[in-house]
Amino acid sequence: MRNPLSDEVVKIKPSGIRKFFDIVAEMKDAISLGVGEPDFDTPWHIRDEGIYSLEKGKTFYTSNSGLKELREEICNYLQRKCDVSYTWNTDVIITVGGSEAIDIGLRAMLNPDDEVIIPQPSYVSYEPCTILAGGKPVIINLKAENEFRLTAKELLDAITEKTKVLILPFPNNPTGAIMEKEDLEAIAKVCIEKDIFVMSDEIYSELTYKGKHVSIASLPGMKERTILINGFSKAYAMTGWRLGYACGPKEIIQQMTKIHQFCIMCAPTTSQYAAVEALKNGDEDVAAMCESYNQRRRFLMNRFREMNLECFEPFGAFYVFPCIKEFGMTSDEFATRFLEEEKVAVVPGTAFGDSGEGYLRVSYAYSIERLKLAMDRLERFVNKLREEKKNK
Amino acid sequence: MRNPLSDEVVKIKPSGIRKFFDIVAEMKDAISLGVGEPDFDTPWHIRDEGIYSLEKGKTFYTSNSGLKELREEICNYLQRKCDVSYTWNTDVIITVGGSEAIDIGLRAMLNPDDEVIIPQPSYVSYEPCTILAGGKPVIINLKAENEFRLTAKELLDAITEKTKVLILPFPNNPTGAIMEKEDLEAIAKVCIEKDIFVMSDEIYSELTYKGKHVSIASLPGMKERTILINGFSKAYAMTGWRLGYACGPKEIIQQMTKIHQFCIMCAPTTSQYAAVEALKNGDEDVAAMCESYNQRRRFLMNRFREMNLECFEPFGAFYVFPCIKEFGMTSDEFATRFLEEEKVAVVPGTAFGDSGEGYLRVSYAYSIERLKLAMDRLERFVNKLREEKKNK
Repeated sequence: MRNPLSDEVVKIKPSGIRKFFDIVAEMKDAISLGVGEPDFDTPWHIRDEGIYSLEKGKTFYTSNSGLKELREEICNYLQRKCDVSYTWNTDVIITVGGSEAIDIGLRAMLNPDDEVIIPQPSYVSYEPCTILAGGKPVIINLKAENEFRLTAKELLDAITEKTKVLILPFPNNPTGAIMEKEDLEAIAKVCIEKDIFVMSDEIYSELTYKGKHVSIASLPGMKERTILINGFSKAYAMTGWRLGYACGPKEIIQQMTKIHQFCIMCAPTTSQYAAVEALKNGDEDVAAMCESYNQRRRFLMNRFREMNLECFEPFGAFYVFPCIKEFGMTSDEFATRFLEEEKVAVVPGTAFGDSGEGYLRVSYAYSIERLKLAMDRLERFVNKLREEKKNK
Repeated sequence: MRNPLSDEVVKIKPSGIRKFFDIVAEMKDAISLGVGEPDFDTPWHIRDEGIYSLEKGKTFYTSNSGLKELREEICNYLQRKCDVSYTWNTDVIITVGGSEAIDIGLRAMLNPDDEVIIPQPSYVSYEPCTILAGGKPVIINLKAENEFRLTAKELLDAITEKTKVLILPFPNNPTGAIMEKEDLEAIAKVCIEKDIFVMSDEIYSELTYKGKHVSIASLPGMKERTILINGFSKAYAMTGWRLGYACGPKEIIQQMTKIHQFCIMCAPTTSQYAAVEALKNGDEDVAAMCESYNQRRRFLMNRFREMNLECFEPFGAFYVFPCIKEFGMTSDEFATRFLEEEKVAVVPGTAFGDSGEGYLRVSYAYSIERLKLAMDRLERFVNKLREEKKNK
């Protein structure tokens, strides 16, 4: 029998995040700080709205683009929070999480060999989704000395004749880095000059611990060249509901909707009803969860300082990204030994790109109690490694 | 500003199904027989299981492939209903409806310019999904004289050096045609001889009104070259839950899972819990709904006979596909005038491929009362057209 598989697909590496989960799932007393998912249940009133829709028998397809009311609420939300105006019936599509929005956005825009600039470390999907859409990923290795922000110079250096799209993943997974208004203004200038489009993945926009999140779409001249991606997973602790959205120029949204119609049909109906409630009455929940994350973030930064572990202060998402270069081992070696010897799972920075080498992604979407336990184990491990090094 | 769009994507025609819906939505007293969606609410005990999972706070991601329990139940179900054995942890992936399964199945298998044979009339997604995956659709125009079944001769004639996949869409949307065991055996022989793979879309498998549905995967030598696609939308009236699955050779499922992981992450969690209940305790609901559909199917066939409208008897799905060639107009003209003059929406056969010309898709996922009203209007319209023709 012949080979059934696509050559390009076979070549794509599976995500490096999962490997440690499989080990940790089998290990007794292990602590995982590995998952990129809020530890909170979805707030009750949001779940209740989903339940109510099921009780009422709202179990049918919605329109391909999603419920009118949800699209309207998204427009209100983005106006209120990010100061960008979208029109509900032409500029918005409801997707299966931010993930689908990334996939169909790239499929709608890329011609063969168009280049997509991907700053790394960043979320594991951008590179494979670019390849799957027939494009060519061009990686920018972000630097710790810039707090893992993207600079205009780095962007300019990466742009070629073939560049079509810049993926802008801030607040960033895995580094926790944010881009402030002046950072974005410099990037916007380059995008306009070089006539490239931006896919701005703002899924962590609500989890910002320094000032207010700024969307690049709100800057002059940028709305018409930006696909803004967001969703409900992170801000509202709604990962399992699989609900996100994309907003952008109507001709791009129209093509995305065509792909979505054929490949997905519509986003889950129950989730859409719940999401309307999240946008209408979820601000306080978001604020409360955000405050919890911020406490944990500061706790971790304090503990790192106490154990003298280098880590730039991240102001977004729910990750810290400590540097382990002093120990003279790779991120993978460190994470493997840490798991084996102290039963704590963290993700090697290299799971998010080569420039993650020498770093670890530590998620703080866990209770303070668990984080405390994990940090005690980390401190012990770090001291052991320093001891080993001294005795060499 | 340069053109942001993919040339290939722009070229893909949007679905022809939706056009009539938009008109009918604005029209007072109109009756739509256009939708491909059960008119039943999801059975209460299935909804209740979804509700229970929400109450318990099961709002997190599942594994990429889907809940273990659901994959196990799917294996039990397919063994029980179709006599095919799959292994839950290697051969099954839970998807966002059958739609996603088609998309990622083709993406996992196709190299550029691989040919995919698509018998038409058939569901609107196969052709665009093939193009989006970089393949080349090769259409077989099914014939009314064969009751719109696929014959081995037709398949043989369509196969070239470049053929990789045959899409097998039975029970069929829009014709209602089924393929019985001997039909499938002839097709299987060709597939094995010519070494091609089959994507068997069996989403309407439970809605069969003549004998028991047979899956091509159950025939000797076929399991290893078949992706079996099914889901919960049609059998359990669960369209809005967006839940389907694919089963097949583990190396294909593995690549599909990789694409799914990056582009979708996982299927909606609430829907997965509800689907476990559907498979465990849903047989009676399926039987009851199936009996209703069958009554309506026979009602429509009777009415067509009474008004002398040509229609082969379809034994699957919830569509009939009457022929309107006697009126000397295109399907689109007929459907447009029928909507304008009698306020009944049906879908022109051409929405499902050129070979649908001269036919209409009439869905009977509607109450007998509504069908009766629509048939009264159809009879009046048909008589008017015959009168017109006589007076010409």
